[in-house]
Order: sequence, then structure tokens, then C-alpha cells
Amino acid sequence: MKLYWSSRSPFVRKVMIVAHETGIADRIERIPVEVALAKPNKAVMADNPLNKIPALVRDDGLALFDSLVICEYLDALQARSTLIPPAGDARWRALRWHALGNGLLDLLILWRSERMRPDGQRADAMLAAFAVKLAASLARLDDEADALAAAPFGIGQIGVGCALAYLDFRFADQAWRTGRNRLARWYVDFAARPSVVATAFFDPV
Amino acid sequence: MKLYWSSRSPFVRKVMIVAHETGIADRIERIPVEVALAKPNKAVMADNPLNKIPALVRDDGLALFDSLVICEYLDALQARSTLIPPAGDARWRALRWHALGNGLLDLLILWRSERMRPDGQRADAMLAAFAVKLAASLARLDDEADALAAAPFGIGQIGVGCALAYLDFRFADQAWRTGRNRLARWYVDFAARPSVVATAFFDPV
Repeated sequence: MKLYWSSRSPFVRKVMIVAHETGIADRIERIPVEVALAKPNKAVMADNPLNKIPALVRDDGLALFDSLVICEYLDALQARSTLIPPAGDARWRALRWHALGNGLLDLLILWRSERMRPDGQRADAMLAAFAVKLAASLARLDDEADALAAAPFGIGQIGVGCALAYLDFRFADQAWRTGRNRLARWYVDFAARPSVVATAFFDPV
Repeated sequence: MKLYWSSRSPFVRKVMIVAHETGIADRIERIPVEVALAKPNKAVMADNPLNKIPALVRDDGLALFDSLVICEYLDALQARSTLIPPAGDARWRALRWHALGNGLLDLLILWRSERMRPDGQRADAMLAAFAVKLAASLARLDDEADALAAAPFGIGQIGVGCALAYLDFRFADQAWRTGRNRLARWYVDFAARPSVVATAFFDPV
């Protein structure tokens, strides 16, 4: 199977963390691509008309997306899924954490795009709203950091952890750890996992 | 349980279609709210710090989001899930269709926000890219319309159908049916379902 991939995409990183955690990273052929909101990439769009990565093309040609679908697919390739609880409250709590991390990533991608607009094209109300939502989301995650640590490692922690990693990568100015000691402590353990170390963000040189 | 709700949100509509299809719409207390990208709503953010709807607050206080998590949760309240295939290829195909419809909705929400900016603040490259991605997504869906009709009704069709309904609601100028006869035919049946009729979009008067 092949994966439209970038070293800078937090959504791709979620998928690669799942691949490493489940021991199948070497079965995935990574196709490096560049995609941006305003720059359609024809190769990617042939498999995902939304122009988004990750997209996973199976050997039978079916292209799966978005990142959560791919994560679930890879997890299910194992004899027994380990990263997404199959049912019940453990499942809803894990998927909710994932949605919180993923929603934060959606917000950060838009925020970055807004910040990079030329002078005069930026919407101040939008920029202010991004900051309010980031602060509220981090406060909530800090409140829930002990529960995040106590729950079995899986898609919830991967979603949250990738959002925090992306803050370090692109929003260092936001100093997300300040006042969020519990979350910062939780992140130390997350960041030390071999699957997380193996998938570090980098800009092409 | 209570649901942060709006008559104008396509993501809320997906959840309400699931509620009607599974016969539990009357168990959901709808809380009408207004949210926008640049206007944080404090009531919503108390339960979903991302300021997004739908958010479903269970009787035990746990707030579930995003819309797919809520749809899956409601579907699982039944003795046997009917709208999301539990495993195997049927599941990946359904979730892929849902992701295509949902990704299209994300794009349309951004497009609308971009269109509504004051003169001088709109990014032409962004507007052009939205149109390219919409055309590619509709072409793909038109190619797959027969498969969409043949597969059991569920989350895939709900995701795609809500995106097309939203095009009628906010992007009538895009005339999405033109040149997409198979998809247009499929949509006639979708739009006639009681769950879809019962959840029609409207602007507050």
C-alpha cells in the first residue's frame, strides 16, 4: 500500500504513529508530496479529490481517507485492534479526545494560513477567535491530562499528542505549556514513545 | 441528552438524520445556538472548547463531538447498529464516502467564509482552489453514484447527501447537477427519505 506523505503534516503523522505502534510501518510506501489549501496537487487529487493528505492507496487501488479512517484501517489489520477501543465508553472517550486533538489541528492549519496572508488580507476577528479557542482547548486538555495518562494508549492520545507537537513545530510563540503543567507532564511521556520519536516533523532542507 | 443544534449546520443535520433513521429523534433535546468561525459562543465552548456544533451532552454530562462520533454513538444505542457497517470492506467504503462528503462540507464552509470577507480581504488563489476541488469531488461522486445507490443506506450516503443538500442551500450558483446526471438521480431518492425531509435546512426568520 502507498501513502501520500509529508514530513510536515500532523495528520500524516497520526497515521505513521499508528503504523509504528502496530509494527507495519515498513509495509507502507511513502510518496512525498506537497499540498496546500490554495495549491491543488494533481497527483494527490487523482486519489483524493479533496486534495488532502494523508491518503492511503491500497494494493487493490481503493484510496482511503481521512486520517482517522486510515488509522482505524491500519489498526484493524492486526489480529486484534489495540489502538481504538471496539465499543462502549472507552471508545467514545477515545474518539472524543481524538476529535479534540484533530479539531485543534484543523484550527491551527487555518490559523497559520491566516497568519501567512499578505497585510490587509488578514481578518482580525478570525485571528482573535483562534486564540480564544486554542486557550479553551488547552485548558480542557490540562484538566483531563490525568485521565489521558490513565487510559490505555491509543487514538485519543495520538490525536492530542500530534496537536501539541504541531504547536511546538509551528506555534512556538504560543508557549502552550505555560500554566498547563499537567498537560506538559503528560506530553513528556508521549514525546518519548519510539513511534513519536520516529515520526518527528521536519521542513525539507 | 441534549444537542447543540442549528437549522443551518450540515454537520448537525447529519446527526439529526441518524437520529430520525434510528427512531430516537424525540429523545434528543435540541439547544438552538449560533456559532461562526470568528464568533466564539461561550455556551457551546463550555462543552466543546473548539466552538463547533454539533456537540451532544449525555445525561452523565460527557460531551461528545465531532459529528461522526455522535452519529456512531447514536447508531450504537440501537440493539444492533444499522447505519455504520461494523467491520471489513463495507465499513471502509462507507467511512470513505462519509469522509468525502464531510471534507466537501469543510471546504464549502471555508469557501463561504472567504466569499463573505470584505473586498480586498479575499484570497483569489484560495477561491480558485475551492472551485477546482469541488469539481473534482463531484466528478468522483458522479462516477460512484451507482455504487452509492447499491450499498446499504448509512453514514456514507448521509455524508454525501448532506454535502449536496448544503450546495443547494448555500451554493445554488454552482449548479452542481450540471453534467452529473447519475449523482443528481441518486440525490432525488436521498432527498425523499423521511429523515432527510424532516431535517431540511432553513434560515431563522
